[in-house]
Amino acid sequence: MEQSDLQSLEENLPFWKKVSDDERKVLVDGTIRFTHGKGAIVHDDRNICTGLLMVVSGQLRVYIISETGKEITLYRLFERDVCVLSASCLIRNITFDVHVQAEKETTILRIATDSYQQVGKTNPFVQDFTNQLVSSRFSDVMWVVEQVVFMSFDRRLAMHLLEQAAIAGQDSFAATHEAIARDLGTAREVVTRMLSRFQDDHLVNLSRGGITLTDRDGLYALT
Amino acid sequence: MEQSDLQSLEENLPFWKKVSDDERKVLVDGTIRFTHGKGAIVHDDRNICTGLLMVVSGQLRVYIISETGKEITLYRLFERDVCVLSASCLIRNITFDVHVQAEKETTILRIATDSYQQVGKTNPFVQDFTNQLVSSRFSDVMWVVEQVVFMSFDRRLAMHLLEQAAIAGQDSFAATHEAIARDLGTAREVVTRMLSRFQDDHLVNLSRGGITLTDRDGLYALT
Repeated sequence: MEQSDLQSLEENLPFWKKVSDDERKVLVDGTIRFTHGKGAIVHDDRNICTGLLMVVSGQLRVYIISETGKEITLYRLFERDVCVLSASCLIRNITFDVHVQAEKETTILRIATDSYQQVGKTNPFVQDFTNQLVSSRFSDVMWVVEQVVFMSFDRRLAMHLLEQAAIAGQDSFAATHEAIARDLGTAREVVTRMLSRFQDDHLVNLSRGGITLTDRDGLYALT
Repeated sequence: MEQSDLQSLEENLPFWKKVSDDERKVLVDGTIRFTHGKGAIVHDDRNICTGLLMVVSGQLRVYIISETGKEITLYRLFERDVCVLSASCLIRNITFDVHVQAEKETTILRIATDSYQQVGKTNPFVQDFTNQLVSSRFSDVMWVVEQVVFMSFDRRLAMHLLEQAAIAGQDSFAATHEAIARDLGTAREVVTRMLSRFQDDHLVNLSRGGITLTDRDGLYALT
């Protein structure tokens, strides 16, 4: 393992100073660095217990998918975030599948479930970290529930566009109507219709494969 | 504490045999029995840390509510179930509110958050139980997400009616359109329209305040 990877583990696993040298060795030996190209599927089945994923650089999307191929994004993971549901086999009572996709070229450290489980079994700090992650993702999902059930689609779309601009760090960003539909768990036509309305209202400017926010205040007013 | 309550704790808390006598005393001293009438609100704010609720008899509904008063049911708790989100202040990173209502006269044992937390802090079996509960509720909520996002409303309503009949133990049960709307996170009008369609299709028979399933196979076929 490279020194920078070791440093990533040390900095992003809050229990790192509270495990023994032997336990730390188990974790280090069980960790592999991977780089996934944009669009690559990083994890896609609960039965394949991929392991914990720590994002070194890039961006991951965690989503669920229906029998008919419809999707909804649950949350995104950025640099330093740790994905726990890709190791959901180590959490009892988790009965659902999530899928994880790289949204840009993404480098991750993958900690093998076996190694993590071995250390977690005896070290309460590791277990506590797992639980914090689970609770945090549970809260993310509850936010999705609230949006889907309680909010009108124009409001959800406005929030989504503002969020995407924040992620991109600028008012213009690449986004297909298809990708937005997958994020919001709806049909492409629904997105296209509402984006056209937003454009008519001078809130956004649509171009091929991209969107520019032209009236942030107007979008905020919708949220 | 009555002997029967002590027995409930012993039977339904899997860690009971793995805590010390002192720890057990803390839990027993922190436990109070309550009986709530049908419709009573048992817990309604994350900031008020009600404690863990163990259902002795009756039925609890756990739901979220929007600013405008719209509701959706997340899951129900029956005899022997334990409600952990009513003590969500003891779980780090839980950032959402749930509400808990008694759906019939319900007797619960309420374990004070302080007592539970005190024992959980040092006893890994207690912590493990909390985590199992959280993961289990997380899975329940994911099921709600899948239904809301991926399933058509006729399918969701058919599933709901079959579930309600299973809870009631018979084909006829009391249910207002309003209550079904709250369970499914939709408007009463939407429920009324679909129930009328079901009645036209001879799947159900509607009466004042009640529903009778007249064609279970037909309802199953929709799910």
